[in-house]
Amino acid sequence: MLVHTDYLLFNTRKKQEFVRITDEVAAIVKASGVADGIALVSAMHITSGVYVNDWEEGLIHDFQVWLEQLAPAGLAYKHHQTGEDNADAHLKRTIMGHQVVLPITRGALDLGPWEQVFYAEFDGQRKKRVVVKVMGQ
Amino acid sequence: MLVHTDYLLFNTRKKQEFVRITDEVAAIVKASGVADGIALVSAMHITSGVYVNDWEEGLIHDFQVWLEQLAPAGLAYKHHQTGEDNADAHLKRTIMGHQVVLPITRGALDLGPWEQVFYAEFDGQRKKRVVVKVMGQ
Amino acid sequence: MLVHTDYLLFNTRKKQEFVRITDEVAAIVKASGVADGIALVSAMHITSGVYVNDWEEGLIHDFQVWLEQLAPAGLAYKHHQTGEDNADAHLKRTIMGHQVVLPITRGALDLGPWEQVFYAEFDGQRKKRVVVKVMGQ
Repeated sequence: MLVHTDYLLFNTRKKQEFVRITDEVAAIVKASGVADGIALVSAMHITSGVYVNDWEEGLIHDFQVWLEQLAPAGLAYKHHQTGEDNADAHLKRTIMGHQVVLPITRGALDLGPWEQVFYAEFDGQRKKRVVVKVMGQ
Repeated sequence: MLVHTDYLLFNTRKKQEFVRITDEVAAIVKASGVADGIALVSAMHITSGVYVNDWEEGLIHDFQVWLEQLAPAGLAYKHHQTGEDNADAHLKRTIMGHQVVLPITRGALDLGPWEQVFYAEFDGQRKKRVVVKVMGQ
Repeated sequence: MLVHTDYLLFNTRKKQEFVRITDEVAAIVKASGVADGIALVSAMHITSGVYVNDWEEGLIHDFQVWLEQLAPAGLAYKHHQTGEDNADAHLKRTIMGHQVVLPITRGALDLGPWEQVFYAEFDGQRKKRVVVKVMGQ
């Protein structure tokens, strides 16, 4: 059994930014030597997410507009009484999910034709990490 | 360590359809020979999901009405400028989740009394796949 | 390869209650002897969830207010024709997610600085279980 761990680092220019990470995760899987197993890809910060969906700029825009409707910034959130101003980022990342588990088959990510892995930053412009834990044989 | 991979195929009659897959996943777990471990069940297409909830037709109806309110079809989504018309399906599957990891104990799915696994199709009437990756001992 | 299974039991005083379980999960990971791997933490009931987010009472309040807006109690849900009255609990737990997979590195949960694990009860005041399945080496 092989277990391999690596971390992806982010420091986005914009406060909210979706970053495709499929290739970075695939490279970690390759380095792990795991031919058959899984890769956990999980945000280590609670105002960002990791999700699988389409690599299409229009849809990414739609996601961001939609999340703003479901979990608007700037409301009188109780969390803001602590001095924070990012309650909406916690909610948005909950909708998108904060982690995915990717299957690995024959030494590569076993993804469908349009599946792409994204890091979703909702409170960026500072250092964030994603852990990638690869397990298998 | 055992790792076993299989795929479930779908081609739903309706565009939106929720299909119970607990028995199909249980059969793959049995075939894997894994007595203690996990099974990843993950949609390979980005307009369908996999979730665990109740096997009750009324609740399934409630889920579908609710998703239509949260992520309506037919809006002027930017994604549709590419010629697609299914942006809402991408959003709906995000709410439901696109994968689950099921525990396996003593050779069977270790589920609670009412837990059932579902495939949630939001843009069907064509071939889709779900990957099932079983790992353990 | 090590696989270790344990269960957390809940019987909340209130119908809706969020309970921090990071320490309980960490204790199970320690007992498992797994130094490098993953821990699946998954609600076994379909009206409760498990999620990772901030341990801050204001934000927990914000989550609960938000969920009530997105999935209100007391609507004329079809599920209620069966005699149930908790359709909203099924929807709320879907938003929050019903499981997380936590990385284990050097014998401990490999969490970011603010990551805390929570059990989210939406239909409590009765016995519920969460399964914790630890795998690794």
